[in-house]
Amino acid sequence: MRLMSQLDMSTLRFGQHLIKASAVFLRTELSFALVNRKPVVPGHVLVCPLRPVERFRDLQPDELADLFSTTQRVANLVEKHFNATSLTIAIQDGPEAGQTVKHVHIHVLPRKPGDFDRNDSIYDELQKHDRENEDIPSKWRSEEEMAAEASYLRKQIENP
Amino acid sequence: MRLMSQLDMSTLRFGQHLIKASAVFLRTELSFALVNRKPVVPGHVLVCPLRPVERFRDLQPDELADLFSTTQRVANLVEKHFNATSLTIAIQDGPEAGQTVKHVHIHVLPRKPGDFDRNDSIYDELQKHDRENEDIPSKWRSEEEMAAEASYLRKQIENP
Repeated sequence: MRLMSQLDMSTLRFGQHLIKASAVFLRTELSFALVNRKPVVPGHVLVCPLRPVERFRDLQPDELADLFSTTQRVANLVEKHFNATSLTIAIQDGPEAGQTVKHVHIHVLPRKPGDFDRNDSIYDELQKHDRENEDIPSKWRSEEEMAAEASYLRKQIENP
Repeated sequence: MRLMSQLDMSTLRFGQHLIKASAVFLRTELSFALVNRKPVVPGHVLVCPLRPVERFRDLQPDELADLFSTTQRVANLVEKHFNATSLTIAIQDGPEAGQTVKHVHIHVLPRKPGDFDRNDSIYDELQKHDRENEDIPSKWRSEEEMAAEASYLRKQIENP
């Protein structure tokens, strides 16, 4: 009998959403990282605390340290595996900053020369990303596509 | 004789720049926070590691933990004292993400309802912020104005 993956196969809570384990490519003691249903650039992923807290200020010191060491690990991973040369790392903390999912999440976006006509517009896209009224399920990637990407990233972590 | 402030009065290195101690409002074991010469919104401040490393990946675990616990402290401070309700927290990590100062720095921006006509445009402004060819000294705030703001924030930290 094959051993089950170390990943807990149950769903994970992400604010008002439930995330399938197939979309999660890294889970640490206090954090998890997931692929994106509407990536703004290839390799655009999210890193979250396991505890569904709404605001950055709600994070305890151990959660904060784990969240950013996980983000550093994830940032290195996607920069390398999506052939990027830079990273945009951003938190929309609170409704006036564009947050709609009420669960702290760090956007990690691999960047390349000329990836946007106007370099700024990555931020326009990022802000639109979180808006619920523009969140049209028909524009999401398929579950299979997301699972394949998460599986690829999981393998890169297991066999770097 | 009055005691000197605990703040080291020498300048601090910020990539290719030297930052006057009067613009620094918080210094921890491994990090420092400074006011901005071109704030995109009132209370837009920067948090940096003391060690002048260029990329997010270059931070050691103790630097990373200190940087984000300092960022959390600073974020709470500016959200409260600039009467904001949300925060944008962003790192432009590498030239293709808009980084020009070769020293990791976290932008912390207090946000309010309607602070930008188009909510997205804060990011346009943020990206322009770091561009050297748009960095016109005549548009900077005066040293006195910056020192006064830093002094105010320092007092809020000392007597919360």
